[in-house]
Amino acid sequence: MDFSYDARTEQLLGRLGSFMDEFVYPAEPVLAAQLADPAREPWTVPPVFRELQAEARSRGLWNLFLPGELGAGLTNLQYAPLAELTGRSVLLAPAALNCAAPDTGNMELLAQFGDEAQRKQWLEPLLAGEIRSAFAMTEPEVASSDATNITTRIERDGDEYVVNGHKWYITGAMNPECRIFIVMGKTDPAAETRRQQSMILVPRDTPGVTVKRGMTVFGYRDDDHGGHAEIVFENVRVPAANLIGESGSGFAIAQARLGPGRIHHCMRAIGIAERALELMCRRACERVAFGKPLAAQGVVQDWIAESRVRIEQARLLVLKTAWLMDTVGNRGAHTEIQAIKIAVPAAVEWILDKAVQTHGAAGVGQDTPLAQLWAGIRTLRLADGPDEVHKRSLARRELRRHERSDKRSEEVG
Amino acid sequence: MDFSYDARTEQLLGRLGSFMDEFVYPAEPVLAAQLADPAREPWTVPPVFRELQAEARSRGLWNLFLPGELGAGLTNLQYAPLAELTGRSVLLAPAALNCAAPDTGNMELLAQFGDEAQRKQWLEPLLAGEIRSAFAMTEPEVASSDATNITTRIERDGDEYVVNGHKWYITGAMNPECRIFIVMGKTDPAAETRRQQSMILVPRDTPGVTVKRGMTVFGYRDDDHGGHAEIVFENVRVPAANLIGESGSGFAIAQARLGPGRIHHCMRAIGIAERALELMCRRACERVAFGKPLAAQGVVQDWIAESRVRIEQARLLVLKTAWLMDTVGNRGAHTEIQAIKIAVPAAVEWILDKAVQTHGAAGVGQDTPLAQLWAGIRTLRLADGPDEVHKRSLARRELRRHERSDKRSEEVG
Amino acid sequence: MDFSYDARTEQLLGRLGSFMDEFVYPAEPVLAAQLADPAREPWTVPPVFRELQAEARSRGLWNLFLPGELGAGLTNLQYAPLAELTGRSVLLAPAALNCAAPDTGNMELLAQFGDEAQRKQWLEPLLAGEIRSAFAMTEPEVASSDATNITTRIERDGDEYVVNGHKWYITGAMNPECRIFIVMGKTDPAAETRRQQSMILVPRDTPGVTVKRGMTVFGYRDDDHGGHAEIVFENVRVPAANLIGESGSGFAIAQARLGPGRIHHCMRAIGIAERALELMCRRACERVAFGKPLAAQGVVQDWIAESRVRIEQARLLVLKTAWLMDTVGNRGAHTEIQAIKIAVPAAVEWILDKAVQTHGAAGVGQDTPLAQLWAGIRTLRLADGPDEVHKRSLARRELRRHERSDKRSEEVG
Amino acid sequence: MDFSYDARTEQLLGRLGSFMDEFVYPAEPVLAAQLADPAREPWTVPPVFRELQAEARSRGLWNLFLPGELGAGLTNLQYAPLAELTGRSVLLAPAALNCAAPDTGNMELLAQFGDEAQRKQWLEPLLAGEIRSAFAMTEPEVASSDATNITTRIERDGDEYVVNGHKWYITGAMNPECRIFIVMGKTDPAAETRRQQSMILVPRDTPGVTVKRGMTVFGYRDDDHGGHAEIVFENVRVPAANLIGESGSGFAIAQARLGPGRIHHCMRAIGIAERALELMCRRACERVAFGKPLAAQGVVQDWIAESRVRIEQARLLVLKTAWLMDTVGNRGAHTEIQAIKIAVPAAVEWILDKAVQTHGAAGVGQDTPLAQLWAGIRTLRLADGPDEVHKRSLARRELRRHERSDKRSEEVG
Repeated sequence: MDFSYDARTEQLLGRLGSFMDEFVYPAEPVLAAQLADPAREPWTVPPVFRELQAEARSRGLWNLFLPGELGAGLTNLQYAPLAELTGRSVLLAPAALNCAAPDTGNMELLAQFGDEAQRKQWLEPLLAGEIRSAFAMTEPEVASSDATNITTRIERDGDEYVVNGHKWYITGAMNPECRIFIVMGKTDPAAETRRQQSMILVPRDTPGVTVKRGMTVFGYRDDDHGGHAEIVFENVRVPAANLIGESGSGFAIAQARLGPGRIHHCMRAIGIAERALELMCRRACERVAFGKPLAAQGVVQDWIAESRVRIEQARLLVLKTAWLMDTVGNRGAHTEIQAIKIAVPAAVEWILDKAVQTHGAAGVGQDTPLAQLWAGIRTLRLADGPDEVHKRSLARRELRRHERSDKRSEEVG
Repeated sequence: MDFSYDARTEQLLGRLGSFMDEFVYPAEPVLAAQLADPAREPWTVPPVFRELQAEARSRGLWNLFLPGELGAGLTNLQYAPLAELTGRSVLLAPAALNCAAPDTGNMELLAQFGDEAQRKQWLEPLLAGEIRSAFAMTEPEVASSDATNITTRIERDGDEYVVNGHKWYITGAMNPECRIFIVMGKTDPAAETRRQQSMILVPRDTPGVTVKRGMTVFGYRDDDHGGHAEIVFENVRVPAANLIGESGSGFAIAQARLGPGRIHHCMRAIGIAERALELMCRRACERVAFGKPLAAQGVVQDWIAESRVRIEQARLLVLKTAWLMDTVGNRGAHTEIQAIKIAVPAAVEWILDKAVQTHGAAGVGQDTPLAQLWAGIRTLRLADGPDEVHKRSLARRELRRHERSDKRSEEVG
Repeated sequence: MDFSYDARTEQLLGRLGSFMDEFVYPAEPVLAAQLADPAREPWTVPPVFRELQAEARSRGLWNLFLPGELGAGLTNLQYAPLAELTGRSVLLAPAALNCAAPDTGNMELLAQFGDEAQRKQWLEPLLAGEIRSAFAMTEPEVASSDATNITTRIERDGDEYVVNGHKWYITGAMNPECRIFIVMGKTDPAAETRRQQSMILVPRDTPGVTVKRGMTVFGYRDDDHGGHAEIVFENVRVPAANLIGESGSGFAIAQARLGPGRIHHCMRAIGIAERALELMCRRACERVAFGKPLAAQGVVQDWIAESRVRIEQARLLVLKTAWLMDTVGNRGAHTEIQAIKIAVPAAVEWILDKAVQTHGAAGVGQDTPLAQLWAGIRTLRLADGPDEVHKRSLARRELRRHERSDKRSEEVG
Repeated sequence: MDFSYDARTEQLLGRLGSFMDEFVYPAEPVLAAQLADPAREPWTVPPVFRELQAEARSRGLWNLFLPGELGAGLTNLQYAPLAELTGRSVLLAPAALNCAAPDTGNMELLAQFGDEAQRKQWLEPLLAGEIRSAFAMTEPEVASSDATNITTRIERDGDEYVVNGHKWYITGAMNPECRIFIVMGKTDPAAETRRQQSMILVPRDTPGVTVKRGMTVFGYRDDDHGGHAEIVFENVRVPAANLIGESGSGFAIAQARLGPGRIHHCMRAIGIAERALELMCRRACERVAFGKPLAAQGVVQDWIAESRVRIEQARLLVLKTAWLMDTVGNRGAHTEIQAIKIAVPAAVEWILDKAVQTHGAAGVGQDTPLAQLWAGIRTLRLADGPDEVHKRSLARRELRRHERSDKRSEEVG
């Protein structure tokens, strides 16, 4: 278990740090102003993103998330501190570096499972930051954390597939620059449980696709990055060549997509927590109540200490997970990936709650990023399977492990 | 300690229950549709409110909150179950009955401390539901939970007072029907700590008043009931007769306003919790994951049981507080008023969090009321003084109590 | 819901308060000294108990727990504040008043289900405080919270029953003055689930009864009140007349015994919490660290405030439960009895933990009662069915309730 | 940050694993029997320890805790997994390897600060496991977490020092083999705050030393390893040469002793948690309630998953701390040493509580190690300074850190 930063990581960290200081943090009020502009067309991408992307790309801070030749070629361990740093300004920095969800997962998916034509048509413009993409899996009518529940149908009809289904909370899909949806559905409901699903590419402008509305997250439309769409697919026809991988491989592809997606969320969440703690400390020093700064209140000190302790633990668990993924593969890191999915959002939510409380009314409003960050992190506790599903699965593995190696403790009372 | 419902309470409860079933719950989707109408002018009151108010008034369900001859003349204990019931549809029912914050507190204040002219000009239309009002105390620059920090100035100049200050999170003030602000400021900064403040009536359309923007609460603008305004008062001149009570009485009036305000919030919060538990149970029964309904999952059962236990305790504490206020007065119920301020929002927040989690993505969005209710209840933990301030004060009283009667335990090891 | 204390309660409270002040609290160091005396025979009753009992009885403070003519004839609501007050010195006061578990439950059981001979032989000396008793239900080998698991057999053989079984954590049974065991076992394992069990009276000195050892509770033997015995019953023969009620009625009798037993524990636990809070406040005022008393530390103030709030809520829930038991019967109070079983020990454990922490090393040792009280309260979370069993049951009832009356919320999103 | 185990660690881990399997776990029931033997002289060391020590020493598993030539010469990172493994049988294994507190700290102290004579007389037999030692710092009358409060006096009188003071919770001191006390007291109360204290060697049999009684910990006397003594020092005279280091160096020596002591406790605590989780899983698989094993209950699964997640995080934080101590020194690892002091006992206490609950009555008694382990871990939350003191200190450092580098976030809203 070696979590040291190598030379390349150190170099990129330095470069990214300068970019954050010189461009990203100063762009935060710019983004706020552009979003608040009454003349703005809803769901369009505020211009500040383009400017940051150009700058980031010119500095070699581009597609850092993507392993292999198509991306920066970093390991998870190399990427971890960089992703964390982008989390400190999470509305801006990940998108600025073309490292924002859900495109990162979609690009990885296309790089790994797309055929040459699919990669040419969709991966290339995604890697160039020219378009954005969405991943359409969650459905309103069923518990989608259990993929066998999915009701969307993908049926072969000659040279085409016909897609019918109802999705929602499809992040990014309200953005008009989001051109392509990767849709999960069932090609063969009669097959065995994990061979029923397939994934298929559906361009946003295909007839029969209706983007109905933006779903909110605790009142936030997340308008800056394409929101969370409700989408109806009604007799949507796409060429058979749009199927990703072979028919019936959807479940396996989804599984492969999840590991990196989860750890990227967690890496960024650590950065969010650091930013929240920083804001909490600053506020505590500046704000005076009952004759002394909040920083002198024992309860606030307790929050600050707990926050630091939780961040340290969360970061180490993320680093271990990254290191495991790099050394034994995503499958071998299964327990740890679930562990960070359970532990990190919960820890960061707690810290954000205390940062909000330290700020009083300012904490719940639009003048600090805290409330919006809270809403995003709270949602992670149920996105991509609620915590409870992951705990159940982790517990079962732990129980099996003890069944197998129960020898050692047999002699104990 | 007698919490029994008397005949009048039972009768009103029955009448209110019918009104809720026949009018309020059915109006919930109507309100949602009116708020979502793109043609709607922001901050205006959706028409459904007027219809409900007419109906409520005709049924004798009007101004129930107000003791004495001007209102329904109920005790706190009589009002408690009624307010709880309105909490089950908290966006609609309180306003429908003319029992919504902050007007309730403002009407009480005017009834108790306003002179005849003030009551005629402002209390009468408020009691008739013709206008609405706001209470302008919180300031962005200082910890307003400590009233001595307030920086707004109210200075005498001949027959007028001149108001200068900066307020925010002034609930209801974005609503164009909100015609009058009760503003807290300092008339005499040199006086002793609790005699520096006064309250003054400032009509919304007075020159120098600028309603700058609506502050958000976890992404919600709370557009249906006038939002939370940031307001600048710049050389605002009002007649000297607009001062409420005598000069220097602001602190005492604020204290008097707080008790009823807090308990009304808590009464309604119990209703919110009951509604959340109801939604949680229904969802748990309907939603199937991994082959069985969520209601069969042990963790979900744990949430449901805990929710019921917490609701029961919260309600009883609210009832005791109401009973104390009725029997020994608000001052004698000081500890209990703080206790419910600490305990009830925390309990209800916990229940809402579990209700959200049980609903998955649906829980954070606009198709259930849960996320918005959560945001409101979370904010109660810092509105009107953060929990920590109230805990500190309650602890000090407890410590003093033990100092005084330390005899009994002196002989213990 | 009327929780007022009536004249009789007030009078008894006054009398009990004097008894506590004059006799019980001063007896606490006496008990400690008698228990620590190296010449003491293990498990014998320290002499101080006899003295207190004589005094209590002469003051009319005797068998207060028992409704009906045989006891003081109090309602649950009348008894609640008295039991709470005894909880303030829980090692001494309940036993001094002949109101200590498990005898209280056993006396109630005999009063309600014993025949005349059984009452004469066993109930009378118990009511007189001449002997003590134990209730033998829990078994080491099975989850006894599910009574259908019980393996002890009670088999008819002519005019006798033969008992075979293995019990443990039989509270009070190490005490040589404990003369009689009420043993739960199966008379008819083939009957339907709730008709298999019976209860039978087994005198401690019956051949075949082996009291093997005292089980500990977090290191405490609870030597002062008879500890917690492991007992083996091997071909133990008792007259057929020793069966309580009819054969197969054991489950029903056990259910009837549980309600009062649980609420008595909870009433006393409130008293324990008040005592703990008192000690916490005193220590916080006396102990100085880093230049100021602990009472000036924000975190300690937070504990004190939370303790007061939790005690208030716990007490009110206990009072409501008592009132319900008095007005609609134990069956009608089923949900509330489970609710206090879940809520009260958890709250009191939390308070004791903070009281311990405030005392530092002194909190975990023998010079304050805190650690021992903690151990007892912690054990309540698993005694008589772990919390989790009660939560499951309460949740199921809540879910059924919502299924039945789901009309109201059908129109909601 | 490289936490990999090197070859030496792997080799020792293998060797220690075999020793645990072949000797230590089988010795657990032997220890229980020897402790329960009524013929046993209280406070004497049960013979099984000697046997294990002989075996451990012959296998090269001896003084592993001690860096440098006198001990095994391991780094903290090398020692961490070994200490964790001994934590799995914490009553036996650490003492078997001569790696038990408080001797480890005392040996380190003598190795680092003792002069040649002191090392010859006391360190040598300690390293050989021939005698044991105690560290006398805590006093009943003052908050000893603040060393300036200490009241014990060490006064020079000719060639001697005279010690007067009152100590308690002096771990190990009831053991007759404990021959030497390191006593903390004030030599110069008039010096500046951190130069008032000195440490001095006081043999147990010096006239004026009275070992008064064993203090309990949640009912446990901890009789197997010398308990926790209350000791009075009354005009105790020892040669001036017994002073450790120079006069006034006591505070600095105490600080130096704390870091390693804390991390050793935490390393072992991880092993305790692993053992508890193992017992919880086994119990959950074996115990059936309501028709299925506890392992199938969602709430139990939740506990198991949470336990695993917390253990992983706690271990990583301990490893990071060890690595920091090795690479930048104990002073540089100050924040992390406090962080583990705060985080690890709290996590392990939670896990033990759930393990107890899973075991029902068996969990609180003497047939599983859980209750005793709980008592020990709970006490860590207040031993050597309560958590609250450490949180306060950690928070202040965090606040200072933000004050210094507040540049980055100045531009944020």
